[in-house]
Amino acid sequence: MQPLAQSRAEALLARFHDVRDFSRLLARDLEPEDCVVQSMPDVSPTKWHLAHTSWFFETFVLKTWQKNYRPAIPEYAFLFNSYYNAAGNMHRRDLRGLISRPTVAESFRYRENIDRHIDDLISSASEELLDEIEPVVVLGIHHEQQHQELLITDIKHVLAQNPLHPVFRKRPPEKTAAPPPMDFIDFAETIATIGHTGPGFSYDNEGPQHRALVQPFSLASRPVTCGEYLRFIENDGYRRPEFWLSLGWTTMNEQRWEAPLYWEKRDDEWWHFTLSGFRPVDENEPVTHVSYFEADAFANWSGTRLPTEFEWECVAQGETIEGNFVESERFHPAPTKAAGLSQLFGDVWEWTRSSYSPYPGYRAAPGALGEYNGKFMCNQYVLRGGSCATSQSHIRATYRNFFQPEKRWQFNGIRLARDVA
Amino acid sequence: MQPLAQSRAEALLARFHDVRDFSRLLARDLEPEDCVVQSMPDVSPTKWHLAHTSWFFETFVLKTWQKNYRPAIPEYAFLFNSYYNAAGNMHRRDLRGLISRPTVAESFRYRENIDRHIDDLISSASEELLDEIEPVVVLGIHHEQQHQELLITDIKHVLAQNPLHPVFRKRPPEKTAAPPPMDFIDFAETIATIGHTGPGFSYDNEGPQHRALVQPFSLASRPVTCGEYLRFIENDGYRRPEFWLSLGWTTMNEQRWEAPLYWEKRDDEWWHFTLSGFRPVDENEPVTHVSYFEADAFANWSGTRLPTEFEWECVAQGETIEGNFVESERFHPAPTKAAGLSQLFGDVWEWTRSSYSPYPGYRAAPGALGEYNGKFMCNQYVLRGGSCATSQSHIRATYRNFFQPEKRWQFNGIRLARDVA
Amino acid sequence: MQPLAQSRAEALLARFHDVRDFSRLLARDLEPEDCVVQSMPDVSPTKWHLAHTSWFFETFVLKTWQKNYRPAIPEYAFLFNSYYNAAGNMHRRDLRGLISRPTVAESFRYRENIDRHIDDLISSASEELLDEIEPVVVLGIHHEQQHQELLITDIKHVLAQNPLHPVFRKRPPEKTAAPPPMDFIDFAETIATIGHTGPGFSYDNEGPQHRALVQPFSLASRPVTCGEYLRFIENDGYRRPEFWLSLGWTTMNEQRWEAPLYWEKRDDEWWHFTLSGFRPVDENEPVTHVSYFEADAFANWSGTRLPTEFEWECVAQGETIEGNFVESERFHPAPTKAAGLSQLFGDVWEWTRSSYSPYPGYRAAPGALGEYNGKFMCNQYVLRGGSCATSQSHIRATYRNFFQPEKRWQFNGIRLARDVA
Amino acid sequence: MQPLAQSRAEALLARFHDVRDFSRLLARDLEPEDCVVQSMPDVSPTKWHLAHTSWFFETFVLKTWQKNYRPAIPEYAFLFNSYYNAAGNMHRRDLRGLISRPTVAESFRYRENIDRHIDDLISSASEELLDEIEPVVVLGIHHEQQHQELLITDIKHVLAQNPLHPVFRKRPPEKTAAPPPMDFIDFAETIATIGHTGPGFSYDNEGPQHRALVQPFSLASRPVTCGEYLRFIENDGYRRPEFWLSLGWTTMNEQRWEAPLYWEKRDDEWWHFTLSGFRPVDENEPVTHVSYFEADAFANWSGTRLPTEFEWECVAQGETIEGNFVESERFHPAPTKAAGLSQLFGDVWEWTRSSYSPYPGYRAAPGALGEYNGKFMCNQYVLRGGSCATSQSHIRATYRNFFQPEKRWQFNGIRLARDVA
Repeated sequence: MQPLAQSRAEALLARFHDVRDFSRLLARDLEPEDCVVQSMPDVSPTKWHLAHTSWFFETFVLKTWQKNYRPAIPEYAFLFNSYYNAAGNMHRRDLRGLISRPTVAESFRYRENIDRHIDDLISSASEELLDEIEPVVVLGIHHEQQHQELLITDIKHVLAQNPLHPVFRKRPPEKTAAPPPMDFIDFAETIATIGHTGPGFSYDNEGPQHRALVQPFSLASRPVTCGEYLRFIENDGYRRPEFWLSLGWTTMNEQRWEAPLYWEKRDDEWWHFTLSGFRPVDENEPVTHVSYFEADAFANWSGTRLPTEFEWECVAQGETIEGNFVESERFHPAPTKAAGLSQLFGDVWEWTRSSYSPYPGYRAAPGALGEYNGKFMCNQYVLRGGSCATSQSHIRATYRNFFQPEKRWQFNGIRLARDVA
Repeated sequence: MQPLAQSRAEALLARFHDVRDFSRLLARDLEPEDCVVQSMPDVSPTKWHLAHTSWFFETFVLKTWQKNYRPAIPEYAFLFNSYYNAAGNMHRRDLRGLISRPTVAESFRYRENIDRHIDDLISSASEELLDEIEPVVVLGIHHEQQHQELLITDIKHVLAQNPLHPVFRKRPPEKTAAPPPMDFIDFAETIATIGHTGPGFSYDNEGPQHRALVQPFSLASRPVTCGEYLRFIENDGYRRPEFWLSLGWTTMNEQRWEAPLYWEKRDDEWWHFTLSGFRPVDENEPVTHVSYFEADAFANWSGTRLPTEFEWECVAQGETIEGNFVESERFHPAPTKAAGLSQLFGDVWEWTRSSYSPYPGYRAAPGALGEYNGKFMCNQYVLRGGSCATSQSHIRATYRNFFQPEKRWQFNGIRLARDVA
Repeated sequence: MQPLAQSRAEALLARFHDVRDFSRLLARDLEPEDCVVQSMPDVSPTKWHLAHTSWFFETFVLKTWQKNYRPAIPEYAFLFNSYYNAAGNMHRRDLRGLISRPTVAESFRYRENIDRHIDDLISSASEELLDEIEPVVVLGIHHEQQHQELLITDIKHVLAQNPLHPVFRKRPPEKTAAPPPMDFIDFAETIATIGHTGPGFSYDNEGPQHRALVQPFSLASRPVTCGEYLRFIENDGYRRPEFWLSLGWTTMNEQRWEAPLYWEKRDDEWWHFTLSGFRPVDENEPVTHVSYFEADAFANWSGTRLPTEFEWECVAQGETIEGNFVESERFHPAPTKAAGLSQLFGDVWEWTRSSYSPYPGYRAAPGALGEYNGKFMCNQYVLRGGSCATSQSHIRATYRNFFQPEKRWQFNGIRLARDVA
Repeated sequence: MQPLAQSRAEALLARFHDVRDFSRLLARDLEPEDCVVQSMPDVSPTKWHLAHTSWFFETFVLKTWQKNYRPAIPEYAFLFNSYYNAAGNMHRRDLRGLISRPTVAESFRYRENIDRHIDDLISSASEELLDEIEPVVVLGIHHEQQHQELLITDIKHVLAQNPLHPVFRKRPPEKTAAPPPMDFIDFAETIATIGHTGPGFSYDNEGPQHRALVQPFSLASRPVTCGEYLRFIENDGYRRPEFWLSLGWTTMNEQRWEAPLYWEKRDDEWWHFTLSGFRPVDENEPVTHVSYFEADAFANWSGTRLPTEFEWECVAQGETIEGNFVESERFHPAPTKAAGLSQLFGDVWEWTRSSYSPYPGYRAAPGALGEYNGKFMCNQYVLRGGSCATSQSHIRATYRNFFQPEKRWQFNGIRLARDVA
């Protein structure tokens, strides 16, 4: 017998709860003390992520559509607004680690309270109301997935400060095999169609879809490995200015970089802090926790360059979204075994040489939700493809992630490209 | 039947456990999350205080005299050394708030473990061994009492960052009466005997005892109240450079001081954050959380000056050590009702105009314990008399507390003095 | 009788001396004291510009081709290297204002000495040698023209610090007329040819020439005037976050911007510092000394956007290079009188929304001269068209200037663009 | 017939011009460019010193007593006020090096103009008026002598930034002999009379004269030499925290001190920058350009201590004021040849362990001149005896100089003391 079709509201709520539950699962092994710390201004405490994602639903869904909605603790609107000027004043980002209350338990109570309200609102909504609510709830779901990735990369940074090397998730050591050699695959000149269109979810920065002329280029079959990156280090890559952008050279010297973030030399061997503890660097893994500056310098050293985001998207359009995502709960990149184009999605975000800028015809929406993307289109570089901390259901070929070129705490890596003569 | 007199070891252990238990009591109402935060470099997290005081006994008692003592977690020696270069490397002071492990529960386990070892060591010690150990254990007890005061002032600073105004210890509001008017009491010129001598405990910075010529002076009968300080604020005290030290004027403008720390104007009324919540300022209370700069400016504005530490000590030598101390668990200064000289001890530390410097003939001891006091004798000012966060059993007429002139987070207040023509 | 055609060497030397003499002319009215000051890290002292441009010829021409060339003062190689790592160590950029020697007179002697050597080298060079030397000398000439523009904008910043408002060049006050209203001119979609090719001089960042798909767009007929910009200020443009990039909003608040650089409100009227003194703002002039952030915010406020550099270049390809350049020695933008497209060249550099990045196929040359452009392709935005401080003989339709988005001390202005539906 | 004793006005003017002329003499060999630079916030440009000392006479003498005095350039009152809040607003101290005008020549014209007015005022003053004016003129003369010392130490810091090592005053190299060994001379306990009284000039901080009990002590016969200080360096003095104040240890590590200011190791030999050029360190000279922290660490290393200012003054009261002062125009300390107590005055200022604080009964005068001294009595340490940059006519046994403990650019040195058992 055929089961009854799930209603639209039920489907939406199922998806909502899946994602909400996954946030709780991520915090499973953390102590309350872990969830308070902000180890640098870019990092937010775990409990802030838990509360902020709830604030998002409260502010943009409940306050808009729930009749007579009264927030239990009005100060949360101030404490958990991240950067939406149109939604009111907010607590200073760099001071989030000074706020011990609400406690972790209270933050979970806040979540449960919001979830209950969302349940009520959606399950009793008319189809017309659902038409209005659904896009914002879906945005909130994707928003929470983004914060899940940040929760992971942020807690990694927090735990890494501690000489006791706390473990986020146990994972046994493993023997790996060397991946196939890096090949370069040629692509012909094309007038590409770039950006998202159609019914599925996408962020506003992925549109409008438009055509762009892409010259012939060649793309590496897989990301750069730790082993390959070690050759760059050993070849004095961090001491030769000719490979570096001027700003990269300055930054690198000021911050005394000598290797990717979390790497540390002990007795002549490189170790790194992982979410499963302090371990020897595995040369077969994709290198990660590198800045744009390091990715660019590595490319220059190797006689190649980084791809543009359009080149990357041209290639990705035909590929299936498979790989090492957060669903695997590995929380770390893994070596590839595949020959040919591989790891385009998952494992590590891939720096492109494209500055994060609006597509032709782009216009941010009015109001607070218009602040989601457009106002950050300056001095950031686009990354593509998702990482081991990204949800598989969150990523797309048109997805544009972006960070300042000096940032290293995300699972960012390097895929090379070349001009075709 | 007559119980046997308590043995020397028993007495020492009783005192040891009294003080150790009081640390636990202080943290009674705190959540684990509260105990992690470091709200500025001067502040240490509660759990750091709990661990560091244990480290002190471990390092200076157990590692010296306990046979085959093996620390359970050797990294604690690095994490919980405060500033003793001779005792090894240490974690950076300003990064203490980034360390979530050991958790609060683990910190208490560390404490219990150390206490058990101390119990064993002392209860089995010969009299000869006790002769050696006792002075260091007593130093450790006083050291812990100092950190109890810091724990209180630090957690006040931490909780004050939070717009939710968390309460450290509940205390009902109360009606107070105006204290008697401030009198000035004259003292004749004398060759005073300054500093500690004799069998009781004192810190090395209180000696050697020596003579000093003290000119005639006059000392205020009680500390300055919030009401009196408000007159200074209303008379543009924070906008008139003629009252301020040059460095004070600069500091005050850079940090935008307009009132004591924790004061905030709401709808034309002054409120302040207390360990029992956010409350209206009570004009009858001694003013507290003022810097040396503010104390000095207030004195100049009022045509008086701060006392020297010798003047203060001359007066205090004859006085009983009574007052509002931490034992009252009020955690806040209280108005005096007494006419004549009052509140010399307890309530608020009293800034003196004396720079913290060595007494004639002072010489720091060799080794790590010699770092306790001497190396801080620069750019700090002496405070006398203890506060509502000080243990009564910890304070003396010869006791010298000291802070940099811009510090405001301690319970520091103002007692005025005058020259006698 | 007809004089003989000027030889190639003579022509090169004539051009060389023209440009070298113009540097001296620019410093004509400056006192030696003016030439020492570095008012912020971006600014270099006048005498540094005079010496550095000579160092360029010394390092890249004389040291390469002049036989047995021995620098008179070898330390100059350290003091006057700007950023060429491959040419050796260099003095710290932000400390240039601490170096009082060589004096201005000695700097001119250094110039004369270098000029004499260049004269000797070129006038005695064979045609083969000239083939090698000429491109570097021409690069040096263009390099000096760039530094002439910097000399002007830097000395403006220096003199602006002084409440005495020193005058760089006298210029009588003038009455101006309102320019024609701003029109928007439409351009159809095209596959444009972007970048420089052919025999004339260009910088490496202008190539390789390549095709790019440019969507239909509309470009403003003239730059935004001070009067139009005033409307933005009066409409609370500097207090409404919805118009600003996130980084712009932060920067603007941190630096307390309320108007373009050099503007100051006196008795309710706006004045600004110009190279001819402190004067009332003329509403008819193109606005200048605005950052990319302000240009972008103004565009958002007015419902338009900034053009891309490709759009700008498409339009400029057909235009004559005329306008208010440094040759006019006005040193200040002037109002336009022309209807239709005007002021594309000269007056003010026009911010584009294009991040400064390499053209497809671009590769920096090896060696020190390869550091000229490529290593700066990060976190900067492209400006087009030249300003009142640019040499007419220096600018081209393909010319790419670039600055960080927060910079304001150049003669940068705003030309608006729009999408075409 | 009675010649004609110089009148009181004539005598005053003679002294005035002597000192004013000496300022001009000091700047004799400087280029205008040298006179502009401010190499750190503590340093003022030479031309600022020249103008500020004139501003002092203008503000406190001419504006008070010269009828209808109208300043030629009113903005100078803003530019050349150093720190007198009661005299009006002032230019920011750390920005003095950004002000190129008035030029050096204009600054001298300003001086001449002020001098002419002072000539007129004093030569035509009645005795009654002279009674009023004279103390302020004499204060201005001493003020100018203080700035002469600063001019010298400031220009040394300026020229030291330059790798070309410019010479302030030529001085031939010389052979020196080792000074006699350092003796310690005992002094008995006494009730000393400290501070200045009587008719001669003194600063307000030297009074009121008062009695103080000074314990028995022992004072070194001469300052520490470079040779003796080298032993400290070679004994890892800069790497052993046990000798250092906590704040000194931090400062020293942050600023990467490894030797006194201006010292530099070249090919295993120590050189230092002097006002006569870059020279090998002479082990026979008194060491100079050390901070209080270094002086204190050296004393600890050698098992001694620094003297108190009272101890120093007790000894100095009986001594003649002779030595190597600025009048010798050597501008550098010289080795002593004398056995017994020597070099108490001149050569190097001697750090004392006394914090700079008010004498009992001290009260700053009301008004701007009351800002001269009192407001700086915080976080500074007293130095005694004058240096090779001090005027002999400026120094006294009661003279109290003062600097923050980290300052090194003055000619400060070390005389040791010891307790007497």
